[in-house]
Amino acid sequence: MSSPGSAQPTRRLRAGIVGGGRGAFIGSVHRIAAELDGQALLVAGAMSSDARIARASAADWFLERAYASYEEMAAAEAADANGIDFVIIATPNDLHFPVARAFLEADIHVICDKPLALTVAEGEELVRLVESGSTLFALTHVYTGYPAVRQAREMVRGGRLGEIRLCLVEYTQDWLMEPLENRGNKQAAWRMDPARAGLGGCVADIGTHAANLLEYVTDRPIEAICADLTSFVKGRRLDDDAHMLLRLAGGGKGTLVCSQIACGEENRLSLRVYGSQAGLEWHQEEPNTLLFKPAGRPWERLRTGHGYMGAAARAATRVPPGHPEGYLEAFANLYRSFMQDVRRVALGQAPVRDYPGVHEGVRGLRFVAQAVASSRAGSLWQSV
Amino acid sequence: MSSPGSAQPTRRLRAGIVGGGRGAFIGSVHRIAAELDGQALLVAGAMSSDARIARASAADWFLERAYASYEEMAAAEAADANGIDFVIIATPNDLHFPVARAFLEADIHVICDKPLALTVAEGEELVRLVESGSTLFALTHVYTGYPAVRQAREMVRGGRLGEIRLCLVEYTQDWLMEPLENRGNKQAAWRMDPARAGLGGCVADIGTHAANLLEYVTDRPIEAICADLTSFVKGRRLDDDAHMLLRLAGGGKGTLVCSQIACGEENRLSLRVYGSQAGLEWHQEEPNTLLFKPAGRPWERLRTGHGYMGAAARAATRVPPGHPEGYLEAFANLYRSFMQDVRRVALGQAPVRDYPGVHEGVRGLRFVAQAVASSRAGSLWQSV
Amino acid sequence: MSSPGSAQPTRRLRAGIVGGGRGAFIGSVHRIAAELDGQALLVAGAMSSDARIARASAADWFLERAYASYEEMAAAEAADANGIDFVIIATPNDLHFPVARAFLEADIHVICDKPLALTVAEGEELVRLVESGSTLFALTHVYTGYPAVRQAREMVRGGRLGEIRLCLVEYTQDWLMEPLENRGNKQAAWRMDPARAGLGGCVADIGTHAANLLEYVTDRPIEAICADLTSFVKGRRLDDDAHMLLRLAGGGKGTLVCSQIACGEENRLSLRVYGSQAGLEWHQEEPNTLLFKPAGRPWERLRTGHGYMGAAARAATRVPPGHPEGYLEAFANLYRSFMQDVRRVALGQAPVRDYPGVHEGVRGLRFVAQAVASSRAGSLWQSV
Amino acid sequence: MSSPGSAQPTRRLRAGIVGGGRGAFIGSVHRIAAELDGQALLVAGAMSSDARIARASAADWFLERAYASYEEMAAAEAADANGIDFVIIATPNDLHFPVARAFLEADIHVICDKPLALTVAEGEELVRLVESGSTLFALTHVYTGYPAVRQAREMVRGGRLGEIRLCLVEYTQDWLMEPLENRGNKQAAWRMDPARAGLGGCVADIGTHAANLLEYVTDRPIEAICADLTSFVKGRRLDDDAHMLLRLAGGGKGTLVCSQIACGEENRLSLRVYGSQAGLEWHQEEPNTLLFKPAGRPWERLRTGHGYMGAAARAATRVPPGHPEGYLEAFANLYRSFMQDVRRVALGQAPVRDYPGVHEGVRGLRFVAQAVASSRAGSLWQSV
Repeated sequence: MSSPGSAQPTRRLRAGIVGGGRGAFIGSVHRIAAELDGQALLVAGAMSSDARIARASAADWFLERAYASYEEMAAAEAADANGIDFVIIATPNDLHFPVARAFLEADIHVICDKPLALTVAEGEELVRLVESGSTLFALTHVYTGYPAVRQAREMVRGGRLGEIRLCLVEYTQDWLMEPLENRGNKQAAWRMDPARAGLGGCVADIGTHAANLLEYVTDRPIEAICADLTSFVKGRRLDDDAHMLLRLAGGGKGTLVCSQIACGEENRLSLRVYGSQAGLEWHQEEPNTLLFKPAGRPWERLRTGHGYMGAAARAATRVPPGHPEGYLEAFANLYRSFMQDVRRVALGQAPVRDYPGVHEGVRGLRFVAQAVASSRAGSLWQSV
Repeated sequence: MSSPGSAQPTRRLRAGIVGGGRGAFIGSVHRIAAELDGQALLVAGAMSSDARIARASAADWFLERAYASYEEMAAAEAADANGIDFVIIATPNDLHFPVARAFLEADIHVICDKPLALTVAEGEELVRLVESGSTLFALTHVYTGYPAVRQAREMVRGGRLGEIRLCLVEYTQDWLMEPLENRGNKQAAWRMDPARAGLGGCVADIGTHAANLLEYVTDRPIEAICADLTSFVKGRRLDDDAHMLLRLAGGGKGTLVCSQIACGEENRLSLRVYGSQAGLEWHQEEPNTLLFKPAGRPWERLRTGHGYMGAAARAATRVPPGHPEGYLEAFANLYRSFMQDVRRVALGQAPVRDYPGVHEGVRGLRFVAQAVASSRAGSLWQSV
Repeated sequence: MSSPGSAQPTRRLRAGIVGGGRGAFIGSVHRIAAELDGQALLVAGAMSSDARIARASAADWFLERAYASYEEMAAAEAADANGIDFVIIATPNDLHFPVARAFLEADIHVICDKPLALTVAEGEELVRLVESGSTLFALTHVYTGYPAVRQAREMVRGGRLGEIRLCLVEYTQDWLMEPLENRGNKQAAWRMDPARAGLGGCVADIGTHAANLLEYVTDRPIEAICADLTSFVKGRRLDDDAHMLLRLAGGGKGTLVCSQIACGEENRLSLRVYGSQAGLEWHQEEPNTLLFKPAGRPWERLRTGHGYMGAAARAATRVPPGHPEGYLEAFANLYRSFMQDVRRVALGQAPVRDYPGVHEGVRGLRFVAQAVASSRAGSLWQSV
Repeated sequence: MSSPGSAQPTRRLRAGIVGGGRGAFIGSVHRIAAELDGQALLVAGAMSSDARIARASAADWFLERAYASYEEMAAAEAADANGIDFVIIATPNDLHFPVARAFLEADIHVICDKPLALTVAEGEELVRLVESGSTLFALTHVYTGYPAVRQAREMVRGGRLGEIRLCLVEYTQDWLMEPLENRGNKQAAWRMDPARAGLGGCVADIGTHAANLLEYVTDRPIEAICADLTSFVKGRRLDDDAHMLLRLAGGGKGTLVCSQIACGEENRLSLRVYGSQAGLEWHQEEPNTLLFKPAGRPWERLRTGHGYMGAAARAATRVPPGHPEGYLEAFANLYRSFMQDVRRVALGQAPVRDYPGVHEGVRGLRFVAQAVASSRAGSLWQSV
């Protein structure tokens, strides 16, 4: 790590990864995002529980150190003076908790896919671990990394919308419209297995992203939900579709729709926020545009890269206007913030924590638990 | 009226109107829609309860006969051998029932703005009146008049979507985001006065359109709703925003959002239907396009006016592709179907009733009543 | 006609039509547009040179007087105290001139489809006829009737764009991508017959609309063109595709593209104007939106029906924002302006002439002639 | 380099860069694109002619070897057994030629920004150098790296469009609408200086991209152009706006518009191709969508990431549908193809050359020269 006292970093950070081996597209996404700004290099990994895949995956990426297990990796890297600066957790959900705990206990910073864990109790144990030490923890709610999302948050904070009244958030896909879990699709298999995915299916996988996005942009926590969860595909053990009514702190209301059986939808995450003075609209599939709707005036189409954008959006943009950025760059923005904190901590400085962490993680687990509870009770309102 | 036995009509139909005088934009909409195909002419009216406005409005339109009251008009027109063939009701909600009753009792066909009446009981009385006679009754759920909506219905009926799973319908506006009812806006004043508008505000004014559109396209009645209604504007007596979870006959689910405080929205009515084989999407503000989303294949962008459209859409289109049609033409399509029935009945033929009528009207009144009941009970599910 | 001295019109105007019989969609378009505002009624016509079609068409529309020829109609109507106030010319191009001349000589106001005539010489004779009398003449460059187009013109005139630099105008269709003229399509047959259509094919039919739109919005005449015309379909006698470089008065430049073989295009007329301070963009297929692009600021999306629109757009809009208007309403706006002049002249007032007329007609004929000349000369610049 | 005989690469490639130092956004673009797939690492550079900037830039990127000049770098790297595998040229235009020559002569593979050189003569010398050796040369016509563009090319090649008739290509921006070259903007200064940029301004900077895109997708070379170039900003020495008529091999026609004074445009590169059986449309600012317009059927909206896309597009896509990819990923696709060839050559295999090279470079230089010649001659047709 950079020696304390040196303001200028003198080397790329060293990163390791658990999970994300061949066949899991999310592995490459992490590698690209971590390395995109030239501030880190993947050097170590325990990329699969299947030893053959683990070795092949490590070779694909020219890793210096390939491990057979995350326990071995945590121990060895902690003991190595040139060990990794942080670990990426890109496993199925059920491993998030034990892997995160192992690296936190080894004093290695962690950046972890959501959900934080399988249960609220596990999540709270990670909160205690993180709060009792100085190790950093980031949760990859990637959609908060988009410049236009950060612009939206800045505009809400700046009072441009007035009092927040109505929020509509949606996240629809169709990749689970057939019973892929019975047809050899590995991701579908673990995502629809309660033992590996947790209480929620669709509501956990993408509903939590939608809820997090809404709370991130508006700064208004969802206080209560009234939910209806469904498994449209026969024999499916977890929900593949969920709708809910929302009540937000401060009096706002809204709806959240998430579905993985919405035929024809790819990754349609969208957010609309309506206040007493203006509205905002954003679509993840066209992420460089933010629509601003001031009362009584024409809509404005804000675009990333322009000088009129606020500081947060500008800091998260790499190219001039009209040169589209996308999902990988958004992911890289989370890494950028996280790695800046890794450098700060190495220099003895206080971290800024400008990214989702364990608290957002526990909040997501509660959201899933209460959505399931509401639905089981016949759509009764539940506090989150 | 055309003499029975003559297949070819020999004159334009004669129409009368109650309400819709100067200052009410909906009056002109009715006149244009009724006359658009050259099949009718407005000749009589009782256009306002204010005698001066009534006279001026009738003069604006070159009406042959201007009445001071609808009672007088119903009596006089019924007695006149050259009296009107049908009456248009374009008054505030509280008059729909008495005016409709008066003309039905005078055996004059009626085309009436929604809602059908103020209460379910009134609505049911109109059902009895209509069913006990041979007088026609049409309710102007105008959005069912769009060719692309008719195409959507035809595609659902033809099985192109498979089993219906998920329906998302929305109708958002912003014209009531300020308390216009206290600032001299006449329409806002009666729409937010329970005595004149009925139980529902936004949910009645536009929520019923959304519910009707969904049921029209899918042929699946909404069986139950779980609703949350709000009055965001302080002091307002009826809801200006409503969200609900839906359960449809046949197992489909969905959400309905309606709002009149959604800052920046004009008249954003949109419908999405997702089945087991394909999805559909339609936006009223861009009405000539229908998106079709077959599983595993690219979206198709169907456009009105093309030979590949079905019979229902083709019959409702007046111009070639790329020549936009809009709201007035959709309205005229309702009139076209209704007036064809007026001619059929005159010839002693059975009416086709290819337009919303009293049954859809009662259904809308129940929808409003149950949405209000659900919301008051803390969002408990209510059958519709 | 209204008696002079009466400010308030007391009856609908009486209109006649030549051409536009069964099978010609443009006939209904004229009838609807003329009658839309309740200010006129079609009462007479010589709707086809085929007597059977002429009679049937007149019966379809309940015309009071059906004529076998336009000559007979002009004579009879001029002699009738209750004769028509104006005539609509909706014939193939070759009849525009003789029909217009006949009615102008009968002192009956004329509204005529473009092009004005077959040749510049004919057009100039009509100019002389119109200028030597007090009879009104309107040419249906319908696209100038859209509210958003009028807003664009008002913004350019108000200096909102600064100095005009670059104009891109396009009008593409695909309806002639196959040799329909050899397959029994009557419109295609006369449009691709030089004897009936004139010098130009696509460049005359739609290129003139594009040129007129550009000049209407910018107030900058096209001074010179450098053109390349093509007949892509084998054996075709007139162009079905044309491109040209433009030079505008005041130093602006641009391109004009028109094509009737652009596979998949319906009626894609669009205009972009770029100035030293802002840009504008409009698409006919989504006509209620006008994009305004001020330098260094977000694009604004102006929409018809709003209070922020200028006087010209507001006067051409019939419904609130979000209720789409289209082609028929744009056409009706031309009629509205023309018929207001008809009433003014009847009252002895000066006409306002807020619609295209004989001068725009001659300009269009010159544009076609010079485009053909430029192309034949190997794309040499020609003044217009 | 990978030892011959080993199929699996065993290390990341080593890359160097000339130019692209602090303040030049294109430098980071190259670094990100080169490293994105984890197949290369930037290790050496001569990043600025300003020694201070060169050092600081190298430190920013943790380069192992920073050079003061490209000559020194070429010599040292060629002599180093662990020297770079290829060099990136990201300098102003006037240095492309000497830098490329230096590295080619040192037998180091080159990937170079366009234009290839300042003059056709220089470009032809590079052709000779490349053809006489085995060193690879790639030119970064980045827009050919988009998956949807590759899909378009594959569909044209597969005959899906039939005979190509009409091509419309546009590339508009506004960043030079003010005289930035006189206001301290370094990029503007060299781009509008004939000594450093060459004969063309806008036509060279972006017009060549447009021409290349059209030729890449259609496989039809532009045979002749008829051009009009303008400098709208007073005192500017090179064109900032250009329009041209096009004739393509095989009989197609079209237009090319490029402008850097189109107020409000960011980086609006778009291509439309119309054939006798179908049309295609693509917009760089929304790059993951390709519109396909088969005759007589609805438009299809092809989206990257789907199984229905062809092999070329699939090979150029890193994430599932609905996860937007953009400019950086397109750039990385060029690097991917180039670096695969670098590995092939190291293994003694024949390169595939699936990326633009010196021939496309010379073609671009001729295009600029002939556009300038045509415009100077009063828009006479010139062969390309």
